[in-house]
Amino acid sequence: MKVSIIGVTGYSGVELLRILHSHPVFDIHSIHSTKVDRSISEEYPHMLHIIDKKVEDIDFDRIGEESDVVFLATPSGISKRLVEQLIDKDIKIIDLSGDLRLKDSSEYIQWYKKDPVKNSILTESVYGLSEWNEESIQSAKWIANPGCYPTATLLGLAPVIIEQFVEPASIIVDAKSGTSGAGKTPSNGTLYTEVNENLKIYKVNEHQHTPEIEQQLRMWNGEIKPITFSTHLLPVTRGIMTTIYVQLIEDLDTDKLIDLYKNTYEKHPFVRIRPKGTFPAIKEVCSTNYCDIGLHVDKRTGRLTIVSVIDNLMKGAAGQAVQNANIMFGLDQQTGLNFSPLYP
Amino acid sequence: MKVSIIGVTGYSGVELLRILHSHPVFDIHSIHSTKVDRSISEEYPHMLHIIDKKVEDIDFDRIGEESDVVFLATPSGISKRLVEQLIDKDIKIIDLSGDLRLKDSSEYIQWYKKDPVKNSILTESVYGLSEWNEESIQSAKWIANPGCYPTATLLGLAPVIIEQFVEPASIIVDAKSGTSGAGKTPSNGTLYTEVNENLKIYKVNEHQHTPEIEQQLRMWNGEIKPITFSTHLLPVTRGIMTTIYVQLIEDLDTDKLIDLYKNTYEKHPFVRIRPKGTFPAIKEVCSTNYCDIGLHVDKRTGRLTIVSVIDNLMKGAAGQAVQNANIMFGLDQQTGLNFSPLYP
Amino acid sequence: MKVSIIGVTGYSGVELLRILHSHPVFDIHSIHSTKVDRSISEEYPHMLHIIDKKVEDIDFDRIGEESDVVFLATPSGISKRLVEQLIDKDIKIIDLSGDLRLKDSSEYIQWYKKDPVKNSILTESVYGLSEWNEESIQSAKWIANPGCYPTATLLGLAPVIIEQFVEPASIIVDAKSGTSGAGKTPSNGTLYTEVNENLKIYKVNEHQHTPEIEQQLRMWNGEIKPITFSTHLLPVTRGIMTTIYVQLIEDLDTDKLIDLYKNTYEKHPFVRIRPKGTFPAIKEVCSTNYCDIGLHVDKRTGRLTIVSVIDNLMKGAAGQAVQNANIMFGLDQQTGLNFSPLYP
Amino acid sequence: MKVSIIGVTGYSGVELLRILHSHPVFDIHSIHSTKVDRSISEEYPHMLHIIDKKVEDIDFDRIGEESDVVFLATPSGISKRLVEQLIDKDIKIIDLSGDLRLKDSSEYIQWYKKDPVKNSILTESVYGLSEWNEESIQSAKWIANPGCYPTATLLGLAPVIIEQFVEPASIIVDAKSGTSGAGKTPSNGTLYTEVNENLKIYKVNEHQHTPEIEQQLRMWNGEIKPITFSTHLLPVTRGIMTTIYVQLIEDLDTDKLIDLYKNTYEKHPFVRIRPKGTFPAIKEVCSTNYCDIGLHVDKRTGRLTIVSVIDNLMKGAAGQAVQNANIMFGLDQQTGLNFSPLYP
Repeated sequence: MKVSIIGVTGYSGVELLRILHSHPVFDIHSIHSTKVDRSISEEYPHMLHIIDKKVEDIDFDRIGEESDVVFLATPSGISKRLVEQLIDKDIKIIDLSGDLRLKDSSEYIQWYKKDPVKNSILTESVYGLSEWNEESIQSAKWIANPGCYPTATLLGLAPVIIEQFVEPASIIVDAKSGTSGAGKTPSNGTLYTEVNENLKIYKVNEHQHTPEIEQQLRMWNGEIKPITFSTHLLPVTRGIMTTIYVQLIEDLDTDKLIDLYKNTYEKHPFVRIRPKGTFPAIKEVCSTNYCDIGLHVDKRTGRLTIVSVIDNLMKGAAGQAVQNANIMFGLDQQTGLNFSPLYP
Repeated sequence: MKVSIIGVTGYSGVELLRILHSHPVFDIHSIHSTKVDRSISEEYPHMLHIIDKKVEDIDFDRIGEESDVVFLATPSGISKRLVEQLIDKDIKIIDLSGDLRLKDSSEYIQWYKKDPVKNSILTESVYGLSEWNEESIQSAKWIANPGCYPTATLLGLAPVIIEQFVEPASIIVDAKSGTSGAGKTPSNGTLYTEVNENLKIYKVNEHQHTPEIEQQLRMWNGEIKPITFSTHLLPVTRGIMTTIYVQLIEDLDTDKLIDLYKNTYEKHPFVRIRPKGTFPAIKEVCSTNYCDIGLHVDKRTGRLTIVSVIDNLMKGAAGQAVQNANIMFGLDQQTGLNFSPLYP
Repeated sequence: MKVSIIGVTGYSGVELLRILHSHPVFDIHSIHSTKVDRSISEEYPHMLHIIDKKVEDIDFDRIGEESDVVFLATPSGISKRLVEQLIDKDIKIIDLSGDLRLKDSSEYIQWYKKDPVKNSILTESVYGLSEWNEESIQSAKWIANPGCYPTATLLGLAPVIIEQFVEPASIIVDAKSGTSGAGKTPSNGTLYTEVNENLKIYKVNEHQHTPEIEQQLRMWNGEIKPITFSTHLLPVTRGIMTTIYVQLIEDLDTDKLIDLYKNTYEKHPFVRIRPKGTFPAIKEVCSTNYCDIGLHVDKRTGRLTIVSVIDNLMKGAAGQAVQNANIMFGLDQQTGLNFSPLYP
Repeated sequence: MKVSIIGVTGYSGVELLRILHSHPVFDIHSIHSTKVDRSISEEYPHMLHIIDKKVEDIDFDRIGEESDVVFLATPSGISKRLVEQLIDKDIKIIDLSGDLRLKDSSEYIQWYKKDPVKNSILTESVYGLSEWNEESIQSAKWIANPGCYPTATLLGLAPVIIEQFVEPASIIVDAKSGTSGAGKTPSNGTLYTEVNENLKIYKVNEHQHTPEIEQQLRMWNGEIKPITFSTHLLPVTRGIMTTIYVQLIEDLDTDKLIDLYKNTYEKHPFVRIRPKGTFPAIKEVCSTNYCDIGLHVDKRTGRLTIVSVIDNLMKGAAGQAVQNANIMFGLDQQTGLNFSPLYP
C-alpha cells in the first residue's frame, strides 16, 4: 500500500515519517513540501540513513495515480486548496488540518477567518475520531483528522455525555499543550527564550477548536450548550492535558464512572482508564497513540473532574491519522502504532 | 529593626534572605534551621560574599529578646511547635506555613491531617492577605501569611465576589505551579527527570489550600458554596497561574469588569490589571511581588475567565511576608520590594 | 529466548522493558527489584496494559534455570554481589554497572572506592563496546556493558587513536549529560528546582569513567597518556554529548578524517558520521541506539574537534546491552533496535 | 545623569531598563528602537506601571544634546552606523556589539564578514573589560563593551596568563550559553521545540568572539598562540559557562592557584573565587553582575581546569555596560548593580 505525504517538513509530517517508516503495510512512496529538491535528512538530520528520500514538488496527477492514500500535514487554508486539486483523483485523503472538520461552513468562516471548502466536500468528509466513528471511517474517502485538543477533550467527555449524566451548560475545558503543536514556522511567541520558565494562556474563548468540540458533543447529545474552552502554552515539546469540569445531574461516584469508562473503551486499546485515585501525566503517553484518562467526583460540589492526556503529534495528529488509515484499509487499528511510551 | 528567620535553608527562607539583604529598614539579625553551624553560603553558594552569616540553632529566648520580628519559613506542623514556644516572647511572628490560617481547627484536622494549634492562637492571628487586610495587619502580633495558591486565587476573585456578581456555586479554579513550591526535600516526584517534559495534576479536590480560599471568600460573601480546585505541577521553577471560571449573575462585559478591577486595586501597586484582550504570563512577574490579572467575559456562556499570576516564592510566600512586615512596622508597603521582573 | 531483568525499576531497567517488549526474539521472563510484589505499572503507570508483570524478589536458582540471559541494571557494588551469586548458573550475564569493566582491580578501588569483584571474574568478562569487540562478545558469558560517557567518547576517538594520528598526551573530553544518568534515587542535586535553568560541572578530574576510557584507548594505542575528562549536568532528561579535543600529529584535513570515520564505521549501522560542516545535536538520537559523530580540523591550531552524541539510556545503557545480547545469541545487531529518533 | 538606550526592545536593551530603572544616579531619558510609537510595556508587558515610556525614533541631535551617555544595545553592523552618526556629538557611547572591539579591522572583516568601522574610531575606543581596564575606561569616550563569551573566558584566564604559568599553545575553551544570547529575532534554530531537550554545538572554530579573546590574551602575554574555542547552545534562558583547559608550565597545585586568583581579584567585588573542591553553576549568578570562578589542577596530566560562569545578559552585556558607565562617571562600580542572585 503506497502513501504520499504533503507537508512532510512540518512537525506532523516528520512524525508521519517516523511512524510509517516502520509500518508493516504502508510504504512511503513520495514526500512533498515547499522545501523541494533536498533530501529529508538535510532538513531533519535525525533521519540520516533512515529515510534518504528527496522532498518533491507536488504533482497531483502522479500522486493520484501512484499512491493509495495521501496525508495532508498542511495548515488550514492550504489543505483546502490541495483537497480541491485531489478530489477527482482515485486516492484516499486524510487531512490533518481543520479544513474538513466543520460541517457548517459559516462556523469555519467565523472561527478560522478564512474561505471554507465547498459544501459538497464537507458533506462527504468523515470526522476521524477513530474510537467513535470506526464504521464511517472504514468506507470514507476523505477523512477530517481531528484536532489535538478536540481528540483529548472528546475522548474524555464521550461516556458521560452520551449517558446524559452532565448538566448541558456546565462544560469547562482547561487545556494545556506543548509547543510542537504551534508548528515549525519561527515566531516570537514560540522562541525558547519566551516559552521557557513560562506559562501563557492564549485565544481565551476564541480557539478555533471550540466549534469542532461542540459539533461532536451535540451529535452525541443535542442538548449540549456552548462550552468554555481555554488553552495554555506549556514549556514542553510534546503533550496535551485537558482538565475538564462538568456538573453531574445524578448522584454518581468515582467508582461507577470509572466502570462506565472502562466498559466504554474496553475494545479500544489506545484509550487507557487509570485506577481510582490516580491521574495520567503527559509524559506517560509520550511518543504513543494512547489517550489516558483519570476521573474524580467531588462530593462537596457534585462536579466531575476528567483528566485526559495525549501526545499532540501522535493521537493528536499523525498517530490518529495512521490509525484512521489502518481502519480505511481494513487493518488492525494498532498496526504500526504499538510504541511503548518513552519514559523517562 | 531586627529580624530573625527560622527555616532559612528552605526555598522561602533563602528568598527572604534575598529580599531582606537589600531592605533599607530591616536588618537580618539571625538565621536558623536544622542545618546548623555552617555558613549559609556553604548551603547556598550563590550567597558567597553577600551574606556570610552562620546558620544557628534556635534559641527562643535570644530571638525573643534581640529581634523585632521572626519569619517562620517552616512547614506546617513545625510552625505550630515554634509558635507555641514564641507566643510569650515580645516579638512579632510572620508564619509562612498553613498552621495559623484556618480559624476552624476542625478544618485544619480534616485537610492537613495534623494536630492544630490551639484556638487562642488562631483567634488572634491575622490572615495576611496584604491588599485586603491592611488594617488588621497593622495591629497584628501574629500573621498567618497566605498560601501561594490562595493569594493568586483570592486577589483574582475578590472584586467580583464582593460585588456579588458571581453565581455562588460556580467557582472553578484550575491552578498551575512551578516546583519551588514543593520545597527542597528530595522526593521522587520532584526529580528533574520526572518533572521535565511533563505536566502532572495532583491532590485533585483534596488540596489543603481549598478551605483557606473558601474561608476568605465567605468572609466577603457568605453565600459562597464549595469551590472546585485543581493543582498541576509545571516544569518551571517559579510561578503560579490560576485560571478561574465563574458564572456571572448579571450581564456584564469585559470592559466593565476591567474597570471594576482597576478601581478596586488602584491604591495597591502590587496588583496590575492587564488591558483588554491581553493576559499575564507567569514569567512576567518573575522575582517580584506583583500579582497580574487578566479578564475575559464569554458572551456565549455568560462565564467570566480570570487569569491571575504570581511568583510563588514572592507574592506567594517571602514577598508577601515582607510586605506584611512593612505594614506591621508602619513602612510603605513597597519598601525593599521594588524589583523589576526578571525577563527574559 | 528468555530474559530476566534485575533492577527493573531504575531508569535503565525500564528502558530495557521498552526495548524488549517489542523485541521479536527475546521474551521477558521475569523482572526483579527491591520494590517487590507490585505490578510494574504501579511503579511506572506508562506501562499500564503494556506489561502487567509483577516485580519479583530475586531467586538466583530460578533465574539461572529458567532464563537464557539476565540483565543487571543495578548500581556498582550491587552488581558485584549479584554476579557472585550468578556465576555458577548456566546463564549469560550482561552487567550495566561499572563492576566488571576495569581489568585492574586496583583502579576500581581507586576510582569507585568500593570492593572489587574477584579477578577470575574480571578476566573472563568481555567489555561490550559492540562496534569494536564483536568477536569476543559473540563467545562471552559475562559482558561488562560500557558506561555512557565511555561509549560516546570511545566511538568518537577510536579511528584517530588506532591510526595513531593523535598526540598521545593531548586528549581532552568535555562531556555533558542529561539527568536520567543520575538515576531514580531522590537527591537534592537532581531535583527539578536545582537542575532547571542551570548547568553544573561535577567530579572534575575525578569521574570513575576515566580509567574505563583510558583502558580501552591503551588497548588501541599503548602510547596514550592520561586524559582530561570533565562532566556537566545538563537540564535535559536524555542525551550525552562529548566534545573531544585532540592535537593532530600529521597535517590532516576535515575531509580526510570524515572519510576515515565513514570507512571505519561502514558496516556499523548504529554509528552515523555527519557531513562536513554539520554536527550532531543530542535530540537527533533521542530514543535510539545511534551514536552520531561530527568532525572539524582547525588549521589555526592543528587541533581536531570531535563531537559525539548518544542517548545515555540507549546506546549508553539499555540499547547497547540489547545490541550485545543480539550479538551473543547470533542475531542481527539491529534486531529490536530499529527505532527512529523521536524528533521533535 | 541622563542616559539613552538604542535597541531597547532587544534582550540586552530591556535588561538595561531593568538595571537603570533602579539605578540611583542614572536616569533613563529616552529609549529607541525600530518599533517606535508604542509604550515599552506594549512590547514587554512585564514593565507595565514600572516604565511606561514611549519607544522613540532615533534623533541623533537630540540624543547628543540631552543625554550624557548612550548605550547601543544593537547588533554588529548596526552599531557601526550609529556610532558614525554619534561621534561628533558630546556624548559618551557604550556599544554592546562587536563593532568597536577588534583593533585590527582585517580581523573584523574576516570573522564578522562585514564592513568595519573606520580605524580612527577603533583607535580611540576602549575595551571595557571592567576589572582589567579601569583606568582607560575612566577617561574613555567610547567603550567597546566586551562580548559575553570573552568576558567569562578572559576573567577566568587572566591571572595564569599574566603570570605566564600556561603553555602558550594549549588553551582550549569549551563554552556553553543560554538562548537569550541569540536575541529576540525569530529563527528556526531558537524555537522552543528545537532547543528544548537538546544540546547543539555551533560555529565550531568559527565563532567571531575568538579574535576578541586572543587580542586581549596577547596584550597580557605576547606569546599566546591561537586558541581552540567551541560554543554550545544550552536549553536555558540565561547563563554562560566556560570550561577552560590549559597545560601548566610549572608544577602548581590547586591551592596555590586559588590563592593567586583570590589575590588578583581581591578588590573586584564582582569576581568571586570558589573554595577548593567546589565549582560554580550558572544559576548561582543569575540576574547579577558576578563572574564566579572555580579551579582544579589534575596531577595526572599537569592540566588546569578553569570554570567560569556569568549571566550573559548581565556581566556578559547590560550589567558590565552599566559597570563601565559607573566607572566613566566616577561612581562606585557596584552602584545600581548590587543584585543578589535569583536562586532557585
